[in-house]
Amino acid sequence: MKFNIALLAGDGIGPEVIEQAVKVSDAIAKKFGHEITWKPALTGAAAIDAVGEPYPDETHEICKSSDAVLFGAIGHPRFDNDPSAKVRPEQGLLKMRKALGLFANVRPTFTFPSLLEKSPLKRERIEGTDLVFLRELTGGIYFGEKGRRDGGETAFDNCVYTRAEVQRLAKKGFELAMTRSKKLCCVDKANVLETSRLWRETVQAMEKDYPEVTVSYEFVDAVAMRLVQWPNSYDVLITENLFGDILTDEASVISGSMGLMPSASLGSDIGLFEPIHGSYPQATGKNIANPMATVLSAAMMFENFGLQEEGKAIREAVNSALEQGIVTEDLADGGKAYGTKEVGNWLAANV
Amino acid sequence: MKFNIALLAGDGIGPEVIEQAVKVSDAIAKKFGHEITWKPALTGAAAIDAVGEPYPDETHEICKSSDAVLFGAIGHPRFDNDPSAKVRPEQGLLKMRKALGLFANVRPTFTFPSLLEKSPLKRERIEGTDLVFLRELTGGIYFGEKGRRDGGETAFDNCVYTRAEVQRLAKKGFELAMTRSKKLCCVDKANVLETSRLWRETVQAMEKDYPEVTVSYEFVDAVAMRLVQWPNSYDVLITENLFGDILTDEASVISGSMGLMPSASLGSDIGLFEPIHGSYPQATGKNIANPMATVLSAAMMFENFGLQEEGKAIREAVNSALEQGIVTEDLADGGKAYGTKEVGNWLAANV
Ligand SMILES: CC(C)[C@H](C(=O)O)[C@@H](O)C(=O)O
Ligand SMILES: CC(C)[C@H](C(=O)O)[C@@H](O)C(=O)O
Repeated sequence: MKFNIALLAGDGIGPEVIEQAVKVSDAIAKKFGHEITWKPALTGAAAIDAVGEPYPDETHEICKSSDAVLFGAIGHPRFDNDPSAKVRPEQGLLKMRKALGLFANVRPTFTFPSLLEKSPLKRERIEGTDLVFLRELTGGIYFGEKGRRDGGETAFDNCVYTRAEVQRLAKKGFELAMTRSKKLCCVDKANVLETSRLWRETVQAMEKDYPEVTVSYEFVDAVAMRLVQWPNSYDVLITENLFGDILTDEASVISGSMGLMPSASLGSDIGLFEPIHGSYPQATGKNIANPMATVLSAAMMFENFGLQEEGKAIREAVNSALEQGIVTEDLADGGKAYGTKEVGNWLAANV
Repeated sequence: MKFNIALLAGDGIGPEVIEQAVKVSDAIAKKFGHEITWKPALTGAAAIDAVGEPYPDETHEICKSSDAVLFGAIGHPRFDNDPSAKVRPEQGLLKMRKALGLFANVRPTFTFPSLLEKSPLKRERIEGTDLVFLRELTGGIYFGEKGRRDGGETAFDNCVYTRAEVQRLAKKGFELAMTRSKKLCCVDKANVLETSRLWRETVQAMEKDYPEVTVSYEFVDAVAMRLVQWPNSYDVLITENLFGDILTDEASVISGSMGLMPSASLGSDIGLFEPIHGSYPQATGKNIANPMATVLSAAMMFENFGLQEEGKAIREAVNSALEQGIVTEDLADGGKAYGTKEVGNWLAANV
């Protein structure tokens, strides 16, 4: 097969980890007889510096004409403590999600046996955890009307959902549950929020179309607790944008493998694949960032093209690297630490 | 001193745990020469059943004319899976918070050395954790305009904050930080939400009035992670209503002592004190519920009256009970389990 992949390296360690994912993907392409054309494009603070906005039209055109987007990380500390900054890297991310119709953020949390000790949780709590969040990504309070009134003294953010938005996300949730253990948890705050009541009634109405799936409904605060207590009691979880933001990040740290967690954002034909970690500015340019989450995001990309074997080859290479200690300093535990590039090279040579 | 305390037992195990807190408070009153008049009133599902609404006017009158409110728990499963229920116990809770002006929910999370093993977290992660959330309780998306349009196909919830609302909550946060380690963390999502930007700029402007307090600003998703990773790195945290709902519950389970965590809701002259656990319907009437969180809530009540010694006497009695194994089945660990009443009696006899 032939693919065009838009390559959005972004800020901080983004370019370094993306470079490794490219290497590994190229090795996979060679092995399985595919042809990948990479189309680099600007995004994030890097794009603000170059052309004044975080998701330039040119970048969008490149994404639109590609088969997938491989994304590094964006964000720069100089924007974070300035509530009045007019242009921010994050705006680019939101604009991109909306423009590409990426309404479903797929966030798996799983464990690597060799990393269990890294988890802040006790082994018996975390062992066997393998859950996936589907976070709605283009609606809710992120995209509702927001602003000030009373001369700036009052601020507001509107959270809006339509039934159709809930349905298309929930459909992906039911379908994913069917390929796994047929358990779906709908996370909401239906005891307080009208949008949550719409979520709950919409999902309830869809249950009859998936008679094999067992659906549970839990409040977001209860899930925030149970994720820490019994993460392995969950399988597929669906939720709205803001709850998903908070809970997927919470879930990511319980595994002990946060630096290794990939993600996919799906919707239209073009999927976006990115590590869940941030741009980690302190590590920039030092060849110390862990590239595995980005490499595993490339695995999700192949799998989303229907190329399961290709994805598996990448996952197995990552597993071997972990087992053999071919890891960056975050995982080295006092042992030998390899550089970002060296880990990338090893993975490319071993897929 | 003489006190009138409104007694809102509520649903499920509420009445049973409240009974123990009353016993212990009466014992304290006797020991320190105070006089407490208890004023029972209806709330929650119990009030819906009796008079058709969860926070009746009569209950409000009783609360208004009291010096404090001691609250059990509300909620009943028959309301949870019915998105169309018109009257819900939770509405009573929200109405009460608003009507009594309880804008600051004080939620400590601390550890009991004898319970550290109960934590899902490894000992070295949790040891020494002693943090307090101040959650804004009468604003934000809980109280903004909400509803449906397009014939029910679109739902909305509006999140609104005024600068004055942020200031009064933040002021309590700064003051609390001054009595502790002078570290304050403002939790928001200022990279996306306008209300969060108002929070951040308002708190930033107040920093100069508390030059000794070191303030940090963190995004809600980052805090959801760090609470699991390094809970003992936090001291006082301030945040808006919905974030506070999620994060305080998350924080409560990390300690291993969730069943023991008290809370206070403050604002006007009348404070409300309640355990953070729910109404636990399955345990109702079985004399197995742990009353310690409610008893410790009574301790917070005395302390809020300025009666530090009284509060301390209660806390010490709870510590002794834990050390001596005078505990309900949730803490018995295969050893002898005492009943709710028996634990209450022991505490009352030992304050
Ligand atoms: C950077 C921010 C806007 C973004 C979000 O909240 O969606 C990030 O936290 C994420 O989860 O991808
Ligand atoms: C019952 C519900 C409305 C309430 C809330 O979300 O405020 C509860 O979760 C709490 O935290 O006190």
